[in-house]
Amino acid sequence: MHPRPSGIVTLLTDYGTSDPYVGILKGAVLLKAPKLTLVDLGHELPAQDVEAGGFFVRAALGRFPAGTVHVVVVDPGVGTDRALLAVANDDGYWLGPDNGLLSPLWTDGRVADVRRLDCEHLGLVAASRTFHGRDLLAPAAAWLASGRYGFSALGPRHDAPVTLPREVGARVLHVDRYGNLVTSLPGTALAGARGVQVGGRAVGKHSTYAEVAPGALLAYVGSFGLVEIACNRGSAARSLDLGRGAPVELLPA
Amino acid sequence: MHPRPSGIVTLLTDYGTSDPYVGILKGAVLLKAPKLTLVDLGHELPAQDVEAGGFFVRAALGRFPAGTVHVVVVDPGVGTDRALLAVANDDGYWLGPDNGLLSPLWTDGRVADVRRLDCEHLGLVAASRTFHGRDLLAPAAAWLASGRYGFSALGPRHDAPVTLPREVGARVLHVDRYGNLVTSLPGTALAGARGVQVGGRAVGKHSTYAEVAPGALLAYVGSFGLVEIACNRGSAARSLDLGRGAPVELLPA
Amino acid sequence: MHPRPSGIVTLLTDYGTSDPYVGILKGAVLLKAPKLTLVDLGHELPAQDVEAGGFFVRAALGRFPAGTVHVVVVDPGVGTDRALLAVANDDGYWLGPDNGLLSPLWTDGRVADVRRLDCEHLGLVAASRTFHGRDLLAPAAAWLASGRYGFSALGPRHDAPVTLPREVGARVLHVDRYGNLVTSLPGTALAGARGVQVGGRAVGKHSTYAEVAPGALLAYVGSFGLVEIACNRGSAARSLDLGRGAPVELLPA
Repeated sequence: MHPRPSGIVTLLTDYGTSDPYVGILKGAVLLKAPKLTLVDLGHELPAQDVEAGGFFVRAALGRFPAGTVHVVVVDPGVGTDRALLAVANDDGYWLGPDNGLLSPLWTDGRVADVRRLDCEHLGLVAASRTFHGRDLLAPAAAWLASGRYGFSALGPRHDAPVTLPREVGARVLHVDRYGNLVTSLPGTALAGARGVQVGGRAVGKHSTYAEVAPGALLAYVGSFGLVEIACNRGSAARSLDLGRGAPVELLPA
Repeated sequence: MHPRPSGIVTLLTDYGTSDPYVGILKGAVLLKAPKLTLVDLGHELPAQDVEAGGFFVRAALGRFPAGTVHVVVVDPGVGTDRALLAVANDDGYWLGPDNGLLSPLWTDGRVADVRRLDCEHLGLVAASRTFHGRDLLAPAAAWLASGRYGFSALGPRHDAPVTLPREVGARVLHVDRYGNLVTSLPGTALAGARGVQVGGRAVGKHSTYAEVAPGALLAYVGSFGLVEIACNRGSAARSLDLGRGAPVELLPA
Repeated sequence: MHPRPSGIVTLLTDYGTSDPYVGILKGAVLLKAPKLTLVDLGHELPAQDVEAGGFFVRAALGRFPAGTVHVVVVDPGVGTDRALLAVANDDGYWLGPDNGLLSPLWTDGRVADVRRLDCEHLGLVAASRTFHGRDLLAPAAAWLASGRYGFSALGPRHDAPVTLPREVGARVLHVDRYGNLVTSLPGTALAGARGVQVGGRAVGKHSTYAEVAPGALLAYVGSFGLVEIACNRGSAARSLDLGRGAPVELLPA
């Protein structure tokens, strides 16, 4: 059973904010259902970076009312015959290209029903070869979110969606604005450790920034439920000169 | 006849996002009509760049529900006696300064009814000499969008609004985040051509990125209905070292 | 007496726009009350810059419908035992950490009722030590804005909230996107002056940009009701090579 639509549509893209694309995407949703509530999940994903998009998808899991429709567009293959997916789980609905972007929805272990958007059946025509967010995903999202179509009406089951490869070993998934390094280590792993090894440095475990001196590093369980490395009143990324992809290891207690 | 208000107000400005101006502009709309839906069309127009604003206006045409009210503010003449305009066409309503910003609404051939905002009659007072978006345009937009005033009540007809000069010859109108060059050539022009000449290079016509090798250039009909030049998995702007204003020519078939 | 909630929640943070934090903050509000209207007041405050946040708080005063709930998060002390505040005045409600960020609400002379958020009593648990915006402030704001809790139910009176020190002498509070210098001098002070002294330069008083030649400086009463220094069709910040904190003096008439 799928949750009833919440009337909320979130938008996550790599469109940036200095072009008309985000505004036009919103218009395309509102043209089909003007009463929906639109929420920006972010538009500054690195251009065509599917893996970064996957991090945001995982971060948003469980963070919106059940039945929220999420439109996610990082689409280097736009214009090819890659499928467009609609995915349902107990958390809500996710629409986006079949390039691995949505794979955290099934690899993170939640029940997910994956469909291939049947644009022909839905009467959706791509007026452009380069902006399927506007032409196909936005109207489908609007219809789903407004209750005009139920989830299963969007298309047939899609059996082997593209899945991002599992990372080999722990590493930095994301560097945030404050220079915090968000790693792929689950927060629970830190319980039996005294800290982490990263960039040739041993970083001790603490519960919050203020437990270490200004300028000192700390490892802690961050708000994504993952181990993070921060620098109190500073930037761990700058202090360690590290970025996304850097390997991390637990230091046994 | 003018369309019934949709209850949606879009905002397009050169205010940027690191000042309080956009938030205050939204507050000024909501102070008059707290139930309206606000949509950002963009706030990172180059400061005081009326021509760039015009590109966005054209891009948004037909992209929102009929009866949507669009507030557009790029206003280097704020504080002088330039008029403020309200424009209606079958697409919706547009409010902004009389400096050419809104001229795509009439030069692009749609029926448009152009009025001069009669602030005195509307009881609108400019509390500041520098923020007419907040003091005059936002409340007028809120009244129009909420149905408190009909379009013709906003002011008398305005006969000779400022119109941006037509470009001489085809050129690059906009460079987007991906480095795609959006030109002023209508997409239909590409039908009888084998491509375009730009920056001393002949660029062949294709229908989508994936038809050329990574790193290669292509000309195609983009999502604005205009000819664009892109680089598959790269930036055409960087690859050609070209920007806005660069001349473009069709290559006859 | 406190105003009835307007159903609008504004968000002002230093989270930036390239991380998932703003989207998650919005989700946290909507999880408790999916029908609220969310407005971004700004997310690009300099990281952990409480004083810059205070400038935005002051700028937003009186700019939204009465009963609007404002969530303000610049929180270098997150995870310590600093209190979280709820403040009411005739303008609306403000929630944020007790670090001086909200002090313009009482130092600017408006009646303000200051409470300490009683998270335990409200059943709010900080799932993280670093994201109290999501875990504590957002749900409290949603409950207040949707009318589930009245203001006084949020917690007991808080007698000595942290207050930002008064500036000694007039200075530049904010540099905006256009390079205008917003000073702490009230606009009324300019009435009896012929201009200001700043960066070793005497800058004459005018009412708007167009009164001086392109490239020339002017002092005027800006849209915040404060004295500003601008450069017609240019950047005063660049032209004077000055930024936030620079001292300013009135030039007697």
